[in-house]
Amino acid sequence: MMDVKQYLLKKKKVIDEALDCFLPQPDVYPCSIHQAMRYSVMGTGKRFRPILTVATFELLGGEGDGDILRAACALELIHTYSLIHDDLPCMDDDAWRRGKPTLHKAFDESIAVLAGDALSALAFELLASTGRSDIIHEVAKAIGAQGMVGGQVVDIETEGKPFSSKDVEYIHSQKTGALITVAARIGAILAGAGIQELTSVTRFGKDLGLAFQIVDDILNLEGETDTLGKSTGTDEKKKKATYPALFGLEHSRLEAQRFIEKAKKELDMLGTSAYILKALADFVIQRTR
Amino acid sequence: MMDVKQYLLKKKKVIDEALDCFLPQPDVYPCSIHQAMRYSVMGTGKRFRPILTVATFELLGGEGDGDILRAACALELIHTYSLIHDDLPCMDDDAWRRGKPTLHKAFDESIAVLAGDALSALAFELLASTGRSDIIHEVAKAIGAQGMVGGQVVDIETEGKPFSSKDVEYIHSQKTGALITVAARIGAILAGAGIQELTSVTRFGKDLGLAFQIVDDILNLEGETDTLGKSTGTDEKKKKATYPALFGLEHSRLEAQRFIEKAKKELDMLGTSAYILKALADFVIQRTR
Repeated sequence: MMDVKQYLLKKKKVIDEALDCFLPQPDVYPCSIHQAMRYSVMGTGKRFRPILTVATFELLGGEGDGDILRAACALELIHTYSLIHDDLPCMDDDAWRRGKPTLHKAFDESIAVLAGDALSALAFELLASTGRSDIIHEVAKAIGAQGMVGGQVVDIETEGKPFSSKDVEYIHSQKTGALITVAARIGAILAGAGIQELTSVTRFGKDLGLAFQIVDDILNLEGETDTLGKSTGTDEKKKKATYPALFGLEHSRLEAQRFIEKAKKELDMLGTSAYILKALADFVIQRTR
Repeated sequence: MMDVKQYLLKKKKVIDEALDCFLPQPDVYPCSIHQAMRYSVMGTGKRFRPILTVATFELLGGEGDGDILRAACALELIHTYSLIHDDLPCMDDDAWRRGKPTLHKAFDESIAVLAGDALSALAFELLASTGRSDIIHEVAKAIGAQGMVGGQVVDIETEGKPFSSKDVEYIHSQKTGALITVAARIGAILAGAGIQELTSVTRFGKDLGLAFQIVDDILNLEGETDTLGKSTGTDEKKKKATYPALFGLEHSRLEAQRFIEKAKKELDMLGTSAYILKALADFVIQRTR
């Protein structure tokens, strides 16, 4: 059995190198947009989504690393674009992200909007270069008005208003869960997974995504800005619809743990080699950033 | 010979109906984002880009209307998303568009950012449903940091500063020209065009795109807000890098006409049936909105 920590570090390095290669160089005209894209993408990101894609691909016997790396990096670009737009003054108005000032603070607001747009376009360019329109369809659907963007809409609209567990579940499953689920699915699809494997991986991704966002909520409440690399206490201040706000910290922790256990159970049919994905699930609950 | 005006009206109707069909219904949860998407897309748009795609497709013998309509509508969604983001307070800060208040005025700024993002995602979903990753690659490249977004970056950055004809050409060819060129190319590609036809159509699209933006600049300077459906005089006020600002109105008019004649000449090799595309080019120079 491979050392999981070593595996994740190795994959992170591969992803970081690939991102560096796929992003336009900072001295290419118009320079400011390329510098802004690099500012937000490169650095301290955990690369959780692309590692999930690559690990799922490898678990299911996928071979070669061209298409899978392009698809995995596309998801990291989309994740970064969503963070940039979510941080804007008209949205969450956040000043700190990935251990440094948010893009609209470091550059300006117009470049932040445009860098988000450009990262999204580059993501689809990378996805298209795999030649697989089926995975492009999956990603586009997952990040649209009834996916990631829809989750962000409800997140913004419930701010400061009474909300139900249904609202929180919608926000979590769409804003965060949709992209994490599709990250796992794309790894499986590119590995040529069968329908049963794909179903397991999809269920795994959904539970993992929910747990990921519950932990995000918990860390916003009791994490350290220095470790986390972004502002804390902001959800409470803005009266955001979160798990802890609805159920309290203790119950939220238990729920996150329950989703992780459920996620790992979904992988049982994939045999013992699923241990890396299971370790990735455990990382979600243990993470401090 | 078909009556060109009738042809364009008929195609506009088909595009409008297809857009209505592709956009989520306004009562689908989360309703606000779907209402915002429809607010900006439906209504008085000229549908210039999708009509260009369909007309090029038909000129080159393309048959069937499923894929071509999806691709054509995707381009209209992308065009609309770019207008929404360009109109934001941190960008051009425009209050009026397509004969009504801009989206961030009618709804709010956060919904405007998110509706733009959602329209972009829906565009790629439609493109992906054609199963043609080659056209997705073309579109993604055309609208990215070295295409449409790059043009908007330079447009914003040159505002109020000295600029050269090189700046204006870059802005025009990227901000407007890139999407118009790709609109023509996609029609040709989906029709199964050969390399020579594709080269002609590409050159046609480039010249057409330049002329289109020069006319846009002229209309901003001397058009009527009521007819145009958007604010006028804004470029001069903001000291934007435009053709008239650099060369004066008269020379700009001549340049637009020159690009249109050049564009039409590119179509000569395609025979007499190119008359509809040539009429579309004439429309660009004659338009009042």
